[in-house]
Amino acid sequence: MTNQPYIILVNPQLAENVGMAARAMMNCGLYNLRLVNPRENHLSEKAVAASSNAEEILHKAEIFDSLSNAIKDLHQVFASTARRRDMIKTIYTADAAVEKIYENLSCGIKCGILFGPERTGLENDDVAIADAVIEIPLNPKHCSLNLSQAVLLVGYEWHKLQANAPKSQLVTNKTNVADKETVANMFNFLEKELDECGNFRVDEKRPRMVRNLRNIFLRSQLTEQEINTLYGVFNHLINKK
Amino acid sequence: MTNQPYIILVNPQLAENVGMAARAMMNCGLYNLRLVNPRENHLSEKAVAASSNAEEILHKAEIFDSLSNAIKDLHQVFASTARRRDMIKTIYTADAAVEKIYENLSCGIKCGILFGPERTGLENDDVAIADAVIEIPLNPKHCSLNLSQAVLLVGYEWHKLQANAPKSQLVTNKTNVADKETVANMFNFLEKELDECGNFRVDEKRPRMVRNLRNIFLRSQLTEQEINTLYGVFNHLINKK
Repeated sequence: MTNQPYIILVNPQLAENVGMAARAMMNCGLYNLRLVNPRENHLSEKAVAASSNAEEILHKAEIFDSLSNAIKDLHQVFASTARRRDMIKTIYTADAAVEKIYENLSCGIKCGILFGPERTGLENDDVAIADAVIEIPLNPKHCSLNLSQAVLLVGYEWHKLQANAPKSQLVTNKTNVADKETVANMFNFLEKELDECGNFRVDEKRPRMVRNLRNIFLRSQLTEQEINTLYGVFNHLINKK
Repeated sequence: MTNQPYIILVNPQLAENVGMAARAMMNCGLYNLRLVNPRENHLSEKAVAASSNAEEILHKAEIFDSLSNAIKDLHQVFASTARRRDMIKTIYTADAAVEKIYENLSCGIKCGILFGPERTGLENDDVAIADAVIEIPLNPKHCSLNLSQAVLLVGYEWHKLQANAPKSQLVTNKTNVADKETVANMFNFLEKELDECGNFRVDEKRPRMVRNLRNIFLRSQLTEQEINTLYGVFNHLINKK
Protein backbone atom coordinates (compact mmCIF):
# COMPACT_ATOMS: atom_id res chain seq x y z
CA MET A 1 0.00 0.00 0.00
CA THR A 2 1.64 3.20 -1.17
CA ASN A 3 -0.51 5.51 0.96
CA GLN A 4 0.97 4.23 4.21
CA PRO A 5 4.31 4.32 5.97
CA TYR A 6 6.53 1.23 6.03
CA ILE A 7 7.01 -0.36 9.44
CA ILE A 8 10.63 -1.54 9.51
CA LEU A 9 11.72 -3.91 12.28
CA VAL A 10 15.50 -3.83 12.53
CA ASN A 11 17.09 -7.11 13.69
CA PRO A 12 14.01 -8.38 15.53
CA GLN A 13 14.91 -11.29 17.81
CA LEU A 14 11.83 -13.42 18.48
CA ALA A 15 9.39 -14.53 15.77
CA GLU A 16 6.60 -14.20 18.34
CA ASN A 17 7.30 -10.50 18.71
CA VAL A 18 7.26 -10.02 14.94
CA GLY A 19 3.85 -11.73 14.96
CA MET A 20 2.59 -9.46 17.74
CA ALA A 21 3.88 -6.42 15.89
CA ALA A 22 1.93 -7.59 12.80
CA ARG A 23 -1.17 -7.91 14.97
CA ALA A 24 -0.70 -4.36 16.26
CA MET A 25 -0.27 -3.15 12.66
CA MET A 26 -3.50 -4.86 11.65
CA ASN A 27 -5.26 -3.24 14.64
CA CYS A 28 -4.24 0.09 13.19
CA GLY A 29 -4.84 -0.61 9.51
CA LEU A 30 -1.11 -0.68 8.64
CA TYR A 31 -0.01 -3.33 6.14
CA ASN A 32 3.56 -2.57 4.96
CA LEU A 33 6.05 -4.59 7.00
CA ARG A 34 9.78 -4.81 6.31
CA LEU A 35 12.17 -6.95 8.33
CA VAL A 36 15.91 -6.40 8.49
CA ASN A 37 17.77 -9.59 9.37
CA PRO A 38 15.13 -11.21 11.57
CA ARG A 39 16.83 -13.78 13.82
CA GLU A 40 13.97 -16.26 13.62
CA ASN A 41 11.58 -17.34 10.87
CA HIS A 42 8.80 -14.76 10.74
CA LEU A 43 6.44 -17.36 9.22
CA SER A 44 6.93 -19.93 11.98
CA GLU A 45 3.95 -21.37 13.81
CA LYS A 46 4.72 -19.18 16.83
CA ALA A 47 4.82 -16.00 14.75
CA VAL A 48 1.56 -16.78 12.97
CA ALA A 49 -0.18 -17.65 16.25
CA ALA A 50 1.02 -14.42 17.88
CA SER A 51 -0.22 -12.41 14.90
CA SER A 52 -3.78 -13.52 15.71
CA ASN A 53 -5.34 -13.33 12.21
CA ALA A 54 -2.79 -10.82 10.90
CA GLU A 55 -0.71 -13.47 9.13
CA GLU A 56 -1.50 -11.79 5.80
CA ILE A 57 0.92 -9.06 6.89
CA LEU A 58 3.60 -11.63 7.77
CA HIS A 59 3.26 -13.35 4.40
CA LYS A 60 3.61 -10.08 2.52
CA ALA A 61 6.54 -8.87 4.67
CA GLU A 62 9.69 -7.95 2.73
CA ILE A 63 13.00 -9.21 4.10
CA PHE A 64 16.29 -7.29 3.76
CA ASP A 65 19.87 -8.08 4.65
CA SER A 66 20.71 -4.55 5.77
CA LEU A 67 18.94 -1.42 6.94
CA SER A 68 20.36 0.62 4.07
CA ASN A 69 18.80 -1.81 1.59
CA ALA A 70 15.50 -1.71 3.46
CA ILE A 71 15.20 2.07 3.08
CA LYS A 72 16.70 2.45 -0.45
CA ASP A 73 13.41 3.35 -2.17
CA LEU A 74 12.09 5.55 0.67
CA HIS A 75 12.45 9.32 0.98
CA GLN A 76 12.13 9.99 4.67
CA VAL A 77 12.88 7.74 7.60
CA PHE A 78 11.93 8.11 11.27
CA ALA A 79 13.66 6.18 14.05
CA SER A 80 11.50 5.36 17.05
CA THR A 81 13.48 5.23 20.25
CA ALA A 82 12.91 5.52 23.97
CA ARG A 83 16.46 6.64 24.85
CA ARG A 84 17.78 10.11 24.02
CA ARG A 85 20.93 9.88 21.92
CA ASP A 86 23.81 12.30 21.72
CA MET A 87 22.76 13.46 18.25
CA ILE A 88 21.39 16.66 16.86
CA LYS A 89 18.09 15.49 15.40
CA THR A 90 14.52 16.68 15.32
CA ILE A 91 12.40 14.68 17.75
CA TYR A 92 8.70 14.24 17.06
CA THR A 93 5.95 12.95 19.32
CA ALA A 94 4.13 9.98 17.79
CA ASP A 95 1.14 12.07 16.76
CA ALA A 96 3.24 14.84 15.21
CA ALA A 97 5.30 12.23 13.35
CA VAL A 98 2.30 10.55 11.76
CA GLU A 99 0.93 13.95 10.76
CA LYS A 100 4.26 14.69 9.09
CA ILE A 101 4.22 11.29 7.38
CA TYR A 102 0.66 11.89 6.21
CA GLU A 103 1.63 15.24 4.72
CA ASN A 104 4.70 13.69 3.10
CA LEU A 105 2.74 10.83 1.53
CA SER A 106 0.37 13.30 -0.08
CA CYS A 107 3.42 14.85 -1.84
CA GLY A 108 4.70 11.43 -2.96
CA ILE A 109 7.35 11.23 -0.23
CA LYS A 110 7.53 7.59 0.89
CA CYS A 111 8.21 7.18 4.60
CA GLY A 112 9.47 4.46 6.87
CA ILE A 113 9.47 4.05 10.64
CA LEU A 114 12.28 2.07 12.27
CA PHE A 115 11.88 -0.03 15.40
CA GLY A 116 14.90 -1.63 17.05
CA PRO A 117 15.40 -5.13 18.41
CA GLU A 118 13.59 -6.08 21.62
CA ARG A 119 16.45 -6.08 24.10
CA THR A 120 18.47 -3.05 23.11
CA GLY A 121 16.42 -0.86 20.79
CA LEU A 122 18.03 0.75 17.75
CA GLU A 123 21.81 1.09 17.56
CA ASN A 124 23.15 4.63 17.34
CA ASP A 125 24.14 4.04 13.71
CA ASP A 126 20.57 3.05 12.86
CA VAL A 127 19.23 6.19 14.51
CA ALA A 128 21.84 8.25 12.64
CA ILE A 129 20.55 6.91 9.30
CA ALA A 130 17.12 8.37 10.02
CA ASP A 131 16.00 11.89 9.13
CA ALA A 132 14.25 12.36 12.44
CA VAL A 133 13.35 10.61 15.68
CA ILE A 134 10.01 9.57 17.17
CA GLU A 135 9.90 9.65 20.95
CA ILE A 136 6.60 8.38 22.36
CA PRO A 137 5.73 10.54 25.35
CA LEU A 138 5.62 8.18 28.36
CA ASN A 139 6.53 8.21 32.03
CA PRO A 140 10.24 9.13 31.86
CA LYS A 141 10.93 6.88 34.86
CA HIS A 142 9.42 3.85 33.17
CA CYS A 143 9.29 4.23 29.42
CA SER A 144 10.39 0.80 28.18
CA LEU A 145 7.83 -0.81 25.91
CA ASN A 146 7.52 -4.17 24.15
CA LEU A 147 8.32 -4.02 20.45
CA SER A 148 4.66 -4.64 19.60
CA GLN A 149 3.50 -1.97 22.06
CA ALA A 150 5.75 0.62 20.43
CA VAL A 151 4.35 -0.35 17.02
CA LEU A 152 0.84 -0.21 18.50
CA LEU A 153 1.20 3.32 19.87
CA VAL A 154 2.63 4.76 16.65
CA GLY A 155 0.06 2.80 14.60
CA TYR A 156 -2.74 3.99 16.89
CA GLU A 157 -1.82 7.59 16.17
CA TRP A 158 -1.77 6.79 12.46
CA HIS A 159 -5.21 5.21 12.60
CA LYS A 160 -6.58 8.05 14.71
CA LEU A 161 -5.48 10.52 12.05
CA GLN A 162 -7.12 8.45 9.31
CA ALA A 163 -10.33 7.60 11.15
CA ASN A 164 -10.95 11.04 12.59
CA ALA A 165 -13.67 9.54 14.79
CA PRO A 166 -16.08 11.94 16.52
CA LYS A 167 -14.68 12.74 19.97
CA SER A 168 -17.95 11.84 21.63
CA GLN A 169 -21.30 10.72 20.32
CA LEU A 170 -24.55 9.57 21.81
CA VAL A 171 -25.20 6.20 20.23
CA THR A 172 -28.98 5.88 19.93
CA ASN A 173 -29.13 2.67 17.89
CA LYS A 174 -32.63 2.22 16.42
CA THR A 175 -34.16 5.27 18.08
CA ASN A 176 -33.53 9.02 17.64
CA VAL A 177 -32.86 11.88 19.99
CA ALA A 178 -36.28 13.40 20.74
CA ASP A 179 -36.99 16.81 19.25
CA LYS A 180 -37.76 19.76 21.52
CA GLU A 181 -41.53 19.57 21.04
CA THR A 182 -41.60 15.93 22.16
CA VAL A 183 -39.51 16.79 25.22
CA ALA A 184 -41.67 19.84 26.06
CA ASN A 185 -44.83 17.73 25.81
CA MET A 186 -43.43 15.26 28.28
CA PHE A 187 -42.44 18.05 30.68
CA ASN A 188 -45.91 19.58 30.43
CA PHE A 189 -47.56 16.23 31.07
CA LEU A 190 -45.37 15.54 34.10
CA GLU A 191 -45.76 19.03 35.57
CA LYS A 192 -49.56 18.96 35.16
CA GLU A 193 -49.69 15.62 36.97
CA LEU A 194 -47.43 16.92 39.72
CA ASP A 195 -49.60 20.02 40.09
CA GLU A 196 -52.62 17.78 40.54
CA CYS A 197 -51.04 15.52 43.14
CA GLY A 198 -49.64 18.43 45.18
CA ASN A 199 -45.90 18.02 44.47
CA PHE A 200 -45.56 21.80 43.95
CA ARG A 201 -47.20 22.82 47.23
CA VAL A 202 -45.43 26.16 47.68
CA ASP A 203 -46.34 28.41 44.76
CA GLU A 204 -43.26 30.63 44.82
CA LYS A 205 -41.01 27.59 44.72
CA ARG A 206 -42.74 26.06 41.70
CA PRO A 207 -40.72 27.76 38.90
CA ARG A 208 -37.46 26.75 40.46
CA MET A 209 -38.57 23.18 41.10
CA VAL A 210 -39.75 22.88 37.52
CA ARG A 211 -36.41 24.15 36.23
CA ASN A 212 -34.48 21.70 38.41
CA LEU A 213 -36.60 18.79 37.26
CA ARG A 214 -36.23 19.74 33.61
CA ASN A 215 -32.46 20.04 34.00
CA ILE A 216 -32.23 16.45 35.20
CA PHE A 217 -33.80 15.17 32.01
CA LEU A 218 -32.22 17.70 29.66
CA ARG A 219 -28.72 16.57 30.63
CA SER A 220 -29.63 13.05 29.44
CA GLN A 221 -30.44 14.06 25.84
CA LEU A 222 -33.48 11.77 25.83
CA THR A 223 -34.37 9.67 22.80
CA GLU A 224 -37.93 9.15 21.52
CA GLN A 225 -37.93 5.61 22.89
CA GLU A 226 -36.79 6.80 26.32
CA ILE A 227 -39.57 9.44 26.38
CA ASN A 228 -42.09 6.65 25.78
CA THR A 229 -40.44 4.64 28.55
CA LEU A 230 -40.83 7.61 30.90
CA TYR A 231 -44.51 8.13 29.99
CA GLY A 232 -45.02 4.47 30.88
CA VAL A 233 -43.22 4.91 34.20
CA PHE A 234 -45.15 8.08 35.12
CA ASN A 235 -48.50 6.52 34.23
CA HIS A 236 -47.76 3.45 36.30
CA LEU A 237 -46.80 5.59 39.28
CA ILE A 238 -49.96 7.71 38.87
CA ASN A 239 -52.19 4.65 38.81
CA LYS A 240 -50.36 2.85 41.57
CA LYS A 241 -52.93 3.00 44.29
CA MET B 1 -3.32 9.29 44.05
CA THR B 2 -6.46 11.38 44.00
CA ASN B 3 -5.53 13.35 40.87
CA GLN B 4 -5.78 10.31 38.62
CA PRO B 5 -8.48 7.97 37.39
CA TYR B 6 -8.83 4.47 38.87
CA ILE B 7 -8.04 1.64 36.48
CA ILE B 8 -10.54 -1.11 37.33
CA LEU B 9 -9.97 -4.60 35.93
CA VAL B 10 -13.22 -6.54 36.11
CA ASN B 11 -12.80 -10.33 36.58
CA PRO B 12 -9.31 -10.48 35.08
CA GLN B 13 -8.36 -14.09 34.30
CA LEU B 14 -4.57 -14.43 34.20
CA ALA B 15 -2.22 -12.97 36.81
CA GLU B 16 0.28 -12.35 34.03
CA ASN B 17 -2.15 -10.03 32.25
CA VAL B 18 -2.77 -8.12 35.47
CA GLY B 19 1.02 -7.71 35.76
CA MET B 20 1.27 -6.48 32.17
CA ALA B 21 -1.58 -4.05 32.75
CA ALA B 22 0.33 -2.71 35.79
CA ARG B 23 3.40 -2.27 33.60
CA ALA B 24 1.34 -0.33 31.04
CA MET B 25 -0.05 1.84 33.85
CA MET B 26 3.47 2.58 35.09
CA ASN B 27 4.49 3.48 31.50
CA CYS B 28 1.79 6.10 31.58
CA GLY B 29 2.22 7.37 35.14
CA LEU B 30 -1.02 5.79 36.39
CA TYR B 31 -0.92 4.24 39.85
CA ASN B 32 -4.49 3.52 41.03
CA LEU B 33 -5.37 -0.11 40.31
CA ARG B 34 -8.54 -1.87 41.45
CA LEU B 35 -9.27 -5.53 40.79
CA VAL B 36 -12.74 -7.05 40.87
CA ASN B 37 -12.64 -10.80 41.58
CA PRO B 38 -9.29 -11.60 39.95
CA ARG B 39 -9.21 -15.31 39.16
CA GLU B 40 -5.53 -15.68 40.02
CA ASN B 41 -3.27 -14.19 42.66
CA HIS B 42 -2.19 -10.77 41.40
CA LEU B 43 0.97 -10.96 43.55
CA SER B 44 2.15 -14.29 42.17
CA GLU B 45 5.64 -14.61 40.74
CA LYS B 46 4.24 -14.56 37.18
CA ALA B 47 2.30 -11.37 37.80
CA VAL B 48 5.28 -9.59 39.35
CA ALA B 49 7.60 -10.71 36.53
CA ALA B 50 5.13 -9.52 33.88
CA SER B 51 4.83 -6.16 35.61
CA SER B 52 8.52 -5.55 34.92
CA ASN B 53 9.35 -3.19 37.80
CA ALA B 54 5.77 -2.01 38.27
CA GLU B 55 5.12 -4.35 41.20
CA GLU B 56 4.56 -1.32 43.43
CA ILE B 57 1.24 -0.90 41.61
CA LEU B 58 0.33 -4.56 42.19
CA HIS B 59 1.13 -4.32 45.90
CA LYS B 60 -1.04 -1.23 46.31
CA ALA B 61 -3.91 -2.65 44.22
CA GLU B 62 -7.29 -2.76 45.97
CA ILE B 63 -9.35 -5.94 45.65
CA PHE B 64 -13.17 -5.99 45.56
CA ASP B 65 -15.75 -8.75 45.49
CA SER B 66 -18.09 -6.93 43.14
CA LEU B 67 -18.01 -4.15 40.59
CA SER B 68 -20.59 -2.13 42.52
CA ASN B 69 -18.32 -2.20 45.58
CA ALA B 70 -15.32 -1.21 43.45
CA ILE B 71 -17.01 1.97 42.22
CA LYS B 72 -18.88 2.93 45.43
CA ASP B 73 -16.73 5.98 46.22
CA LEU B 74 -16.37 7.16 42.61
CA HIS B 75 -18.53 9.73 40.84
CA GLN B 76 -18.18 8.89 37.19
CA VAL B 77 -17.34 5.60 35.55
CA PHE B 78 -16.29 4.86 31.96
CA ALA B 79 -16.50 1.39 30.44
CA SER B 80 -13.90 0.62 27.79
CA THR B 81 -15.17 -1.78 25.20
CA ALA B 82 -14.41 -2.80 21.62
CA ARG B 83 -17.92 -4.08 20.80
CA ARG B 84 -20.88 -1.76 20.30
CA ARG B 85 -23.72 -2.67 22.66
CA ASP B 86 -27.42 -2.17 22.20
CA MET B 87 -27.48 0.65 24.76
CA ILE B 88 -28.06 4.35 24.55
CA LYS B 89 -24.81 5.70 25.93
CA THR B 90 -22.37 8.43 25.12
CA ILE B 91 -19.27 6.97 23.47
CA TYR B 92 -15.97 8.78 23.83
CA THR B 93 -12.70 8.26 21.98
CA ALA B 94 -9.82 7.54 24.37
CA ASP B 95 -8.42 11.07 24.09
CA ALA B 96 -11.79 12.73 24.60
CA ALA B 97 -12.46 10.48 27.61
CA VAL B 98 -9.23 11.36 29.38
CA GLU B 99 -9.89 15.06 28.73
CA LYS B 100 -13.30 14.62 30.34
CA ILE B 101 -11.73 12.76 33.26
CA TYR B 102 -9.13 15.47 33.66
CA GLU B 103 -11.82 18.16 33.75
CA ASN B 104 -13.86 16.10 36.21
CA LEU B 105 -10.92 15.55 38.55
CA SER B 106 -10.32 19.28 38.72
CA CYS B 107 -13.90 19.63 40.05
CA GLY B 108 -13.42 16.86 42.62
CA ILE B 109 -15.27 14.25 40.54
CA LYS B 110 -13.47 10.93 41.04
CA CYS B 111 -13.40 8.77 37.93
CA GLY B 112 -12.86 5.11 37.15
CA ILE B 113 -12.24 3.27 33.90
CA LEU B 114 -13.47 -0.32 33.57
CA PHE B 115 -11.70 -3.00 31.54
CA GLY B 116 -13.29 -6.41 31.06
CA PRO B 117 -11.82 -9.90 31.29
CA GLU B 118 -9.41 -11.02 28.56
CA ARG B 119 -11.60 -13.48 26.66
CA THR B 120 -14.97 -11.75 26.57
CA GLY B 121 -14.58 -8.12 27.52
CA LEU B 122 -17.10 -6.46 29.83
CA GLU B 123 -20.53 -8.02 30.30
CA ASN B 124 -23.48 -5.90 29.21
CA ASP B 125 -24.45 -5.38 32.86
CA ASP B 126 -20.99 -3.98 33.61
CA VAL B 127 -21.24 -1.59 30.67
CA ALA B 128 -24.72 -0.57 31.85
CA ILE B 129 -23.31 0.42 35.26
CA ALA B 130 -21.03 2.97 33.60
CA ASP B 131 -21.94 6.58 32.85
CA ALA B 132 -20.30 6.46 29.42
CA VAL B 133 -18.28 4.25 27.13
CA ILE B 134 -14.72 4.52 25.80
CA GLU B 135 -14.24 3.08 22.33
CA ILE B 136 -10.63 3.20 21.18
CA PRO B 137 -10.60 4.07 17.47
CA LEU B 138 -8.97 1.10 15.70
CA ASN B 139 -9.33 -0.85 12.47
CA PRO B 140 -12.98 -1.95 12.68
CA LYS B 141 -12.12 -5.23 10.97
CA HIS B 142 -9.47 -6.08 13.55
CA CYS B 143 -10.00 -4.21 16.79
CA SER B 144 -9.37 -6.86 19.44
CA LEU B 145 -6.63 -5.87 21.88
CA ASN B 146 -4.88 -7.55 24.78
CA LEU B 147 -6.06 -6.32 28.17
CA SER B 148 -2.72 -4.60 28.76
CA GLN B 149 -2.78 -2.98 25.32
CA ALA B 150 -6.20 -1.49 25.98
CA VAL B 151 -4.90 -0.14 29.31
CA LEU B 152 -1.79 1.14 27.50
CA LEU B 153 -3.72 3.10 24.85
CA VAL B 154 -6.04 4.78 27.35
CA GLY B 155 -3.09 5.41 29.69
CA TYR B 156 -1.02 6.80 26.83
CA GLU B 157 -3.71 9.37 26.10
CA TRP B 158 -3.78 10.25 29.80
CA HIS B 159 -0.01 10.72 29.92
CA LYS B 160 -0.02 12.71 26.68
CA LEU B 161 -2.51 15.11 28.20
CA GLN B 162 -0.39 15.48 31.35
CA ALA B 163 2.99 15.71 29.67
CA ASN B 164 1.94 18.03 26.87
CA ALA B 165 5.30 17.37 25.20
CA PRO B 166 6.35 19.70 22.37
CA LYS B 167 5.14 18.18 19.09
CA SER B 168 8.60 18.46 17.58
CA GLN B 169 11.88 19.83 18.84
CA LEU B 170 15.43 19.99 17.62
CA VAL B 171 17.47 18.37 20.36
CA THR B 172 20.83 20.13 20.36
CA ASN B 173 22.32 18.55 23.49
CA LYS B 174 25.35 20.59 24.65
CA THR B 175 25.35 23.02 21.74
CA ASN B 176 22.87 25.73 20.68
CA VAL B 177 21.15 26.63 17.46
CA ALA B 178 23.41 29.21 15.78
CA ASP B 179 22.16 32.79 15.66
CA LYS B 180 21.61 34.51 12.33
CA GLU B 181 24.90 36.44 12.43
CA THR B 182 26.91 33.24 12.89
CA VAL B 183 25.07 31.60 10.00
CA ALA B 184 25.50 34.67 7.76
CA ASN B 185 29.24 34.76 8.50
CA MET B 186 29.57 31.16 7.43
CA PHE B 187 27.60 31.81 4.23
CA ASN B 188 29.80 34.84 3.46
CA PHE B 189 32.96 32.85 4.07
CA LEU B 190 31.81 30.00 1.84
CA GLU B 191 30.58 32.25 -0.96
CA LYS B 192 33.82 34.28 -0.97
CA GLU B 193 35.82 31.05 -1.25
CA LEU B 194 33.54 29.80 -4.03
CA ASP B 195 33.93 33.12 -5.89
CA GLU B 196 37.68 32.74 -5.69
CA CYS B 197 37.76 29.14 -6.94
CA GLY B 198 35.37 29.86 -9.83
CA ASN B 199 32.28 27.95 -8.62
CA PHE B 200 30.07 30.89 -9.64
CA ARG B 201 31.37 31.16 -13.21
CA VAL B 202 28.23 32.63 -14.80
CA ASP B 203 27.55 35.99 -13.19
CA GLU B 204 23.80 36.10 -13.84
CA LYS B 205 23.36 32.70 -12.23
CA ARG B 206 25.25 33.62 -9.05
CA PRO B 207 22.31 35.05 -7.02
CA ARG B 208 20.19 31.99 -7.67
CA MET B 209 23.01 29.55 -6.89
CA VAL B 210 23.73 31.39 -3.64
CA ARG B 211 20.07 31.20 -2.63
CA ASN B 212 19.89 27.48 -3.41
CA LEU B 213 23.04 26.79 -1.42
CA ARG B 214 21.80 28.82 1.55
CA ASN B 215 18.45 26.99 1.48
CA ILE B 216 20.19 23.63 1.89
CA PHE B 217 21.79 24.75 5.14
CA LEU B 218 18.89 26.85 6.39
CA ARG B 219 16.56 23.84 6.37
CA SER B 220 18.96 22.09 8.75
CA GLN B 221 18.71 24.74 11.51
CA LEU B 222 22.46 24.50 12.14
CA THR B 223 23.91 24.57 15.63
CA GLU B 224 27.05 26.48 16.63
CA GLN B 225 28.97 23.21 16.84
CA GLU B 226 27.85 22.18 13.37
CA ILE B 227 28.91 25.56 11.94
CA ASN B 228 32.38 24.93 13.36
CA THR B 229 32.34 21.45 11.84
CA LEU B 230 31.46 22.96 8.45
CA TYR B 231 34.25 25.58 8.70
CA GLY B 232 36.62 22.68 9.30
CA VAL B 233 35.26 20.76 6.33
CA PHE B 234 35.43 23.78 4.00
CA ASN B 235 38.99 24.63 5.07
CA HIS B 236 40.13 21.05 4.54
CA LEU B 237 38.61 21.00 1.05
CA ILE B 238 40.22 24.37 0.22
CA ASN B 239 43.64 23.18 1.31
CA LYS B 240 43.32 19.75 -0.27
CA LYS B 241 45.79 20.07 -3.09
